[in-house]
Amino acid sequence: MGRSFFGRGACDNKGQNLAHLKAVEAYLKTGSALPCDITFVIEGEEEVGSTSLTAFLRKHRRELSCDAVVISDTSMPTRRHPALTYSLRGIAAFEVILRGPDRDLHSGLFGGTVDNPAMALCQLIGKLRDKNGRVAIPGFYDDVRPLSVFERRQLRRIPFNANEYKKLVGVPRLFGEHGYTPTEQRSARPTLEINGLTSGYQGEGSKTIVPSWARVKITTRLVPNQSPRRITSLVTQHLNRLCPPTARIEIQPGHGAEPYLVSPTGPRAQAALRAIREAFHREPVLIREGGSIPVVNDFKKILHADALMIGLALPDDNAHSPNEKFDLDCFGRGQLMSAHLWRELART
Amino acid sequence: MGRSFFGRGACDNKGQNLAHLKAVEAYLKTGSALPCDITFVIEGEEEVGSTSLTAFLRKHRRELSCDAVVISDTSMPTRRHPALTYSLRGIAAFEVILRGPDRDLHSGLFGGTVDNPAMALCQLIGKLRDKNGRVAIPGFYDDVRPLSVFERRQLRRIPFNANEYKKLVGVPRLFGEHGYTPTEQRSARPTLEINGLTSGYQGEGSKTIVPSWARVKITTRLVPNQSPRRITSLVTQHLNRLCPPTARIEIQPGHGAEPYLVSPTGPRAQAALRAIREAFHREPVLIREGGSIPVVNDFKKILHADALMIGLALPDDNAHSPNEKFDLDCFGRGQLMSAHLWRELART
Repeated sequence: MGRSFFGRGACDNKGQNLAHLKAVEAYLKTGSALPCDITFVIEGEEEVGSTSLTAFLRKHRRELSCDAVVISDTSMPTRRHPALTYSLRGIAAFEVILRGPDRDLHSGLFGGTVDNPAMALCQLIGKLRDKNGRVAIPGFYDDVRPLSVFERRQLRRIPFNANEYKKLVGVPRLFGEHGYTPTEQRSARPTLEINGLTSGYQGEGSKTIVPSWARVKITTRLVPNQSPRRITSLVTQHLNRLCPPTARIEIQPGHGAEPYLVSPTGPRAQAALRAIREAFHREPVLIREGGSIPVVNDFKKILHADALMIGLALPDDNAHSPNEKFDLDCFGRGQLMSAHLWRELART
Repeated sequence: MGRSFFGRGACDNKGQNLAHLKAVEAYLKTGSALPCDITFVIEGEEEVGSTSLTAFLRKHRRELSCDAVVISDTSMPTRRHPALTYSLRGIAAFEVILRGPDRDLHSGLFGGTVDNPAMALCQLIGKLRDKNGRVAIPGFYDDVRPLSVFERRQLRRIPFNANEYKKLVGVPRLFGEHGYTPTEQRSARPTLEINGLTSGYQGEGSKTIVPSWARVKITTRLVPNQSPRRITSLVTQHLNRLCPPTARIEIQPGHGAEPYLVSPTGPRAQAALRAIREAFHREPVLIREGGSIPVVNDFKKILHADALMIGLALPDDNAHSPNEKFDLDCFGRGQLMSAHLWRELART
């Protein structure tokens, strides 16, 4: 019998991990032996790039040796669609500063003779996405592994109601890369997002200045087989090329994470699908997740173990937003699923 | 003998006004009678649109009745180029918010399916200026009174050294509307400046969100005969037209001020030029100023008095910036100029 371990007390939906703890607690309370060895790995640095976990895994690779990694940090499309996630998007983050005058200038006295770094930044950044919702950086899509017919069919099984979704996120109209469904856009296609803009005066009312600098925070979400390193280099080259001679550009690469893809047809994935089926009384859907779990790739590289990502979060959980929640029904069925899971895994 | 009055204790360079006070004090100390009546008007709201002064002028228009208004709130090109300013730029301010999702969204879970308001704002705002430095809003230049040959000749008398100026403002390269000199660009041509940009995450590091909204603060600097009201309407119409259906736009007009233009050939302007000549031992230059002094138009409309704008500030005074200063030599000669000025004005 092999050993399995699972993690991680990450920032999103700590309730998901609690479901696993509760299942183990139930085994122990009934006096039955656990069907397999389980090691819990709990970390709290996911949202800032998991800088310590990799070193920890390397240092303890012998102790942590296992057959599979179970992670509940993803989501399921609806309460009626429990899911096994077989792919994650990666990420590459950037901070870009355009510097103009060496201090904020009076816009009356100097305005008209110097470039406005906030305007220059808008013009530069505005060129990074075309009107079809595609990232307009040469080479950006070169390494994208195209979606197979099988994958697109699986992804179409996931229910999607445009009106409900619009209401859920509160936008007047959806917008994404032409030629792909919203499910594909948010999980199986790469994106470039502005996370923050800062320049000049931030307070109430007006201040008549030409700001000295303008900053943008950007993250690109990557899909298999894009590499954060190559995307970082492409973005940096392109921004340097676009920067007008009237400003100085500073590009600071931030954290990066590889995208992840694993075949859902192996024996342990099948064991996970059986456990999900039993707990939810539903046929699980196979999904790609749009978020990133950077350490999944470390588990693979360092421990040579594939990750079984069984998400219990719902799309309306408001992850990363005010009023984040975790559904009690998901919590209950998640505990059941976990109890089945260790037994099913032990049989593989 | 008519009465003259001057103002104003405004935000910029309060030292300029102190020069006038010192000159009056000198008259009084020597026991000589003032050559004319002087009323001081001191206000501190210029930078926020002088909301109280207009009502004050209206209420006290009889008491404040005068032959001319003297304002020292402008600047002179160099210590060797004392100046009479015959035109000011006006202003029209705007705050524009683009709203996307009704809260910040997780960029992994939702990114790719909704428009990013910060990206939409960059693309929208980036279209407001073309690559020749012209404001790209239909009708924006319609009411601009073209510069006459005489004016362009006068403006060319003002010394300008591109390298020194570049160093003064600390930019790698100058940039302005093609076809005009920097002196014209900063004083006789209208501009559109971004004063502030705000969206999403502002702190250190990264936050993987699609921000709920993005805001830009804009001021347009206007020249005769543009009207802030008409420009406000043109900008608003154009922004509404450009706003994509994936976002909601909110446009909040801010303070406005008419541009100002007065002929420098009348008897009081000539009196001012004589006073400047005597104090500085230099031939004054006739200049347009790039900044706005909103109440100058109120003095004209309510008191029917033209403004003599005799600026004592220097371009490197860092107005509106850290380390603002006022030159002691300008302060001294300014006091002399003021002493001559009241005498010369009394003779008109």
